[in-house]
Amino acid sequence: MLDNFTLPSFVQVIEFLGTFAFAISGIRLASGKEFDWFGAYVVGVATAVGGGTLRDIMLGTTPFWMTDSIYLLCSALALICVILFSKFLIRLDHTFFIFDAIGLALFTVVGIQKTLDFDFPLWVAIIMGTITGAAGGVIRDVFINEIPLIFRKEIYAMACAIGGIVYGIALSLDLNIIVVHLMCGVSVFLTRILAVKYHICLPTLKNHENN
Amino acid sequence: MLDNFTLPSFVQVIEFLGTFAFAISGIRLASGKEFDWFGAYVVGVATAVGGGTLRDIMLGTTPFWMTDSIYLLCSALALICVILFSKFLIRLDHTFFIFDAIGLALFTVVGIQKTLDFDFPLWVAIIMGTITGAAGGVIRDVFINEIPLIFRKEIYAMACAIGGIVYGIALSLDLNIIVVHLMCGVSVFLTRILAVKYHICLPTLKNHENN
Amino acid sequence: MLDNFTLPSFVQVIEFLGTFAFAISGIRLASGKEFDWFGAYVVGVATAVGGGTLRDIMLGTTPFWMTDSIYLLCSALALICVILFSKFLIRLDHTFFIFDAIGLALFTVVGIQKTLDFDFPLWVAIIMGTITGAAGGVIRDVFINEIPLIFRKEIYAMACAIGGIVYGIALSLDLNIIVVHLMCGVSVFLTRILAVKYHICLPTLKNHENN
Repeated sequence: MLDNFTLPSFVQVIEFLGTFAFAISGIRLASGKEFDWFGAYVVGVATAVGGGTLRDIMLGTTPFWMTDSIYLLCSALALICVILFSKFLIRLDHTFFIFDAIGLALFTVVGIQKTLDFDFPLWVAIIMGTITGAAGGVIRDVFINEIPLIFRKEIYAMACAIGGIVYGIALSLDLNIIVVHLMCGVSVFLTRILAVKYHICLPTLKNHENN
Repeated sequence: MLDNFTLPSFVQVIEFLGTFAFAISGIRLASGKEFDWFGAYVVGVATAVGGGTLRDIMLGTTPFWMTDSIYLLCSALALICVILFSKFLIRLDHTFFIFDAIGLALFTVVGIQKTLDFDFPLWVAIIMGTITGAAGGVIRDVFINEIPLIFRKEIYAMACAIGGIVYGIALSLDLNIIVVHLMCGVSVFLTRILAVKYHICLPTLKNHENN
Repeated sequence: MLDNFTLPSFVQVIEFLGTFAFAISGIRLASGKEFDWFGAYVVGVATAVGGGTLRDIMLGTTPFWMTDSIYLLCSALALICVILFSKFLIRLDHTFFIFDAIGLALFTVVGIQKTLDFDFPLWVAIIMGTITGAAGGVIRDVFINEIPLIFRKEIYAMACAIGGIVYGIALSLDLNIIVVHLMCGVSVFLTRILAVKYHICLPTLKNHENN
C-alpha cells in the first residue's frame, strides 16, 4: 500500500503485517463457506488490496499492487498459513486482531497521504483513507454473500474517519509530516481497539417500515 | 451529478432533490437490515453517487462527487432526516417516489450529456445515462445482500433507456439542447410514473431449468 | 474483446461465440431467479464483458465494449435466443459448455496480450488474463445474489492462470506470437474440459471455526 513512497523499512514491515492480517481474515471467512484454495485466495487478495485498488481507480492511477508483487505474495503466504495451520490460527485470534488494527491504521494513513499527493482536498483524502482501510472488507463480504460486517458491528470504518480528522487537525497545526502520520495512525488504532474492547457500536437505525 | 457544467440553478435544486431521494431510499432499505448509522450512510451515498461514479470511471475521468462536497452533505442530511423522522417518512412515500423519478430523469440527462461531451457515440451515451440513473440502486441492493430490485420490478432502468432514445431522436431533429434535455427528462419521468401507476413490468424469463 | 487489434476474422468468429456463450450463461442463471428481460440482459452483458471491463479500468484505458457495439448486440442476440428457445437450449448444454471453454481461452489470450501491450510485467498480464476470463462470472453471481460458482466448483479461473504460465514459457522460448497465443488458448481450453470431464476440483479449505 505504500506505492512509490520512500519510507523507512519499519513501515514496510507494518505494511506486510497489515496485508497479511487482512488476507488471513478474508481466507478464514472464505473457509467458512467451503471455498476452494483458489476462491479463498481471491477473497484474501480482495480483502487485502481491494480498498487501495478502489482508491487508485478513483484517483485515476494504476492500482498499487500492479507495480509490486509483494502484496499478492503476502496473500499467498497467508493462504499457505491457513491451509497448514488453520486449527492453530484460532488461538492466535487476538494477535491477528492487533495486526488487523495496525493494518487499518497504516492503510488509512497511506490512503490519505496518496490522495493529498494527487492534490485533492482534505475531505476527499479522508474518504479515500477510509476506503483504503475499510472497502476491502466490504468486497470480501460481497464475495462470500454476507451483509458487510462493517455496516453493523463495532466501529471500524468510523475509526478511519476519526483518524482522518486527526490528520487534518495535525496538518493545520503545521506539525512535522511524520508526527501527523503517527497521530493519525495511533488514533485509528486506539479507536478500533477501544471500540472492540468496550463493544462500542454506532446506533442502529430503527426499522419502522416493512420494505 | 452536474460536474462542471454551468446550468441554471433550478437544475441544481432538482439535482439536490434527486440526490436526496436516492440517498433516502438507500438509507431506509439499510434500516430494514439494522445497519448502524455509518453503514446506512455508506449505502445512502452509494445509492446516490454510485451510478455516476461508475460512469466517470468508465469515461476515464475523476468521479464527480470528488470535486464538490454537496453530494455527500446532501446524503448526510438524508441520514439525519431518517434518524429524526423515520416514522413520519412513511407518510411521505409518495413524495419521495416523485423525487426519485425526478432524480432518475435528471441523472439520465446528465449522464448522456457528459458522455457525449467526451466524444463517445450516442449508443454509449444512452448506456451511460442508464448507468448514471440506475446503477446506484444495484450497488445499494448488493450492499444489503438482496437481488437487485430493478432486475425484477416495474420498469426503471428501461425508463432511462427510453429517455436516451428520445434524446437521440430530438438531437437528430436539430432541436435546441435545452429542449432535447427537457424531452429526454420528461420521457424518463413519465415512463417511470406510468409504469408504477399501471404496474407495467417487462416480461419475466421463464425458468425451464433447474440450475 | 479484441479491441483495436487487427486479427484474422476466424478469431472474430471465436470471439463472437465466446461472448454469446458467456451472455447465455448469465441470462439463463438470471431466468432461474425470475428476472425480467432487462435484468436478464444486464446480467448477460455483465457476464460477457464484465471481466474485460475490470481489466481495462485497471489498465487505465476505455472499456473495450465502448468502442464497438458488437458485444452488446451479441448479448442482445443471446437474450432473444433464450426468450424464444429456452426449452430447446437445455439440450444444447454440451455445445454451450464447449463455446464457454473456447470463450474462456480466447478471453485469457486477449487479456494477457493487451496487458503486455501496456508494458506491464508478465505476472500482471497473467492476472489480467484470468480476470478477463473469469471475473464476468463473479459479477454475474453477485448480481443473482449467489456465492460465486468459480470459488467452489471445478477448475475455472485456475485454467486461465495455467494458460498464462504456458504463455510465459512459450514467450521465453522466443516462439512466434501466433504459436504463443495458440499454446496459451489450447492449454486453457484443455484444462477446463478435462477438469469438468474428470470433476477435478481444487482442495477445499477446512472450516475449524465458527465465524
